Amino acid sequence: MKSYRKELWFEVPARRGFINITPQVNQCLTESGVKEGLVLVNAMHITASVFINDDEPGLHQDYEKWLEHLAPHEPVSKYRHNLTGEDNADAHMKRQVMGREVVVAITASRLDFGPWEQIFYGEFDGRRRKRVLVKIIGE
Amino acid sequence: MKSYRKELWFEVPARRGFINITPQVNQCLTESGVKEGLVLVNAMHITASVFINDDEPGLHQDYEKWLEHLAPHEPVSKYRHNLTGEDNADAHMKRQVMGREVVVAITASRLDFGPWEQIFYGEFDGRRRKRVLVKIIGE
Amino acid sequence: MKSYRKELWFEVPARRGFINITPQVNQCLTESGVKEGLVLVNAMHITASVFINDDEPGLHQDYEKWLEHLAPHEPVSKYRHNLTGEDNADAHMKRQVMGREVVVAITASRLDFGPWEQIFYGEFDGRRRKRVLVKIIGE
Repeated sequence: MKSYRKELWFEVPARRGFINITPQVNQCLTESGVKEGLVLVNAMHITASVFINDDEPGLHQDYEKWLEHLAPHEPVSKYRHNLTGEDNADAHMKRQVMGREVVVAITASRLDFGPWEQIFYGEFDGRRRKRVLVKIIGE
Repeated sequence: MKSYRKELWFEVPARRGFINITPQVNQCLTESGVKEGLVLVNAMHITASVFINDDEPGLHQDYEKWLEHLAPHEPVSKYRHNLTGEDNADAHMKRQVMGREVVVAITASRLDFGPWEQIFYGEFDGRRRKRVLVKIIGE
Repeated sequence: MKSYRKELWFEVPARRGFINITPQVNQCLTESGVKEGLVLVNAMHITASVFINDDEPGLHQDYEKWLEHLAPHEPVSKYRHNLTGEDNADAHMKRQVMGREVVVAITASRLDFGPWEQIFYGEFDGRRRKRVLVKIIGE
């Protein structure tokens, strides 16, 4: 069994944003030499997500609006977590809706994807450097 | 390490619906010959889910109503994604709540499940043929 | 390939609650002897979650309030599932928001975590003994 590990670093300049990280994950897969297996891609921070969906800017605006409706950033004082001095409690909620991680099949040395699947880093508390873990196991 | 791959095809006649796919996943497991490992089951489309819950029709009606409350289909014009000519932006939201994939342990050649766990395909933009990927790795 | 399996049992005395199970998962990892691989940790019950987030009591109170807003327990009669004699339909919803499972990378015999990642059992229909499955594969 082969294993491979890499950290990807991102700094989103706004509080929230989505980055298509499929090219970087494909690069990891090439480096790993794994032909058949699984790749785990997860946010290493608890106010961010890794998820799979469509690379369509209108949809990303819809997600932004929808998540803000489900878990509003303000008023900051409505969240007990923010009594610790943070202002990111909403980011912990948004991350649960969008998920921490994805597991993707590797078949014949490629990400085994449907037609529109792309991997995104979802930032909900940005403006600082944060990490995504790529772990690959297989043969 | 063994690996196994199969695509399962579904066509839900309505816009939305849930299908218990546990029998098909069990069939894949038998075909794979894997005794100890993991099975990944994921929607290959970004407006559908694979999730694990109870096979109880009342619960499925509750999910339908609840998801429609969290991310209404209408008015279609409220979503920017639908400016692309689609009318399925809500399906992209519903799929995030219910999830893209499940990973299930394989122990002694069986899905290692609790008493009520069943695997479902959740369709949120049906009336066309769509796929689920089953990928098994192990020994 | 090595594989390891253990069930962890919990009984939350209230209807809902969160338990940090990271120490138990670390113990499983030590017992497994796996140095490189993946660990799957999943609720074996469909009214409970396993998720990764922050071990901060204020945040957990925020989750409790937020989940109750998204999927209220009462009125119990609003859910068709509860016509079966259950009163836990809301728990099936809350579990979908928080997720069934996490998959964590194992690197150099350790859970490959970011700075604040901790694994939680999320109970949404407690007051009885329920299980979490830990499955480890790797080398």
